[in-house]
Amino acid sequence: MANLYDQAYDLEKTVRESDEFNKLTTTYEEVMNNEEAKELFEKFRNTQISIQEKQLSGAEVSENEMKAAELVVQQVQGNSLIQQLIEAEQRMNLVLTEISQIITKPLEELYEKYD
Amino acid sequence: MANLYDQAYDLEKTVRESDEFNKLTTTYEEVMNNEEAKELFEKFRNTQISIQEKQLSGAEVSENEMKAAELVVQQVQGNSLIQQLIEAEQRMNLVLTEISQIITKPLEELYEKYD
Repeated sequence: MANLYDQAYDLEKTVRESDEFNKLTTTYEEVMNNEEAKELFEKFRNTQISIQEKQLSGAEVSENEMKAAELVVQQVQGNSLIQQLIEAEQRMNLVLTEISQIITKPLEELYEKYD
Repeated sequence: MANLYDQAYDLEKTVRESDEFNKLTTTYEEVMNNEEAKELFEKFRNTQISIQEKQLSGAEVSENEMKAAELVVQQVQGNSLIQQLIEAEQRMNLVLTEISQIITKPLEELYEKYD
């Protein structure tokens, strides 16, 4: 029988060689090596995480915080390097989500059977 | 270049044929076909989800609710069929978590590089 872990390592290698991962690596390194873009990207990321955490815990997001977040989004939209990075991340995440859905399909079917 | 999706489907097949998935299927079907075990298992699951949701949202879990949950856990501990199912689920989830960690390793390494 095929070995789960051997196959997982083969898949990891293919992820590493994929266009999606290479595009992500290139754009991520470009952003990280550009002081202005790096700072803005980290601000964007931190703002998003902070708002998400509040929303998940049911805490209120203040009007000031929403305005600050909107400003960061506007700045990000004006920075094509970060735009490229966000797109590259979305494409990579989509692929990984689809792979995960394929692999966990047997469980989904099992649980659906008695839903 | 190897195709990500082809490899994911190969891995899905191996998950489906794995000892972990077959044990999970057998115990899950046994529980679902046993009225008493099924009811208790669903009670256990619902209690866990309810408490988890409250904890995540920061809401207080009442003393009564904690006592009810403890009672369900005691009942579950006395039911060897459900015990087997919980163990089978844990083993399957461990394998899937490890597979997921292997596959997403390239991204982890990329992000760690600039952490």
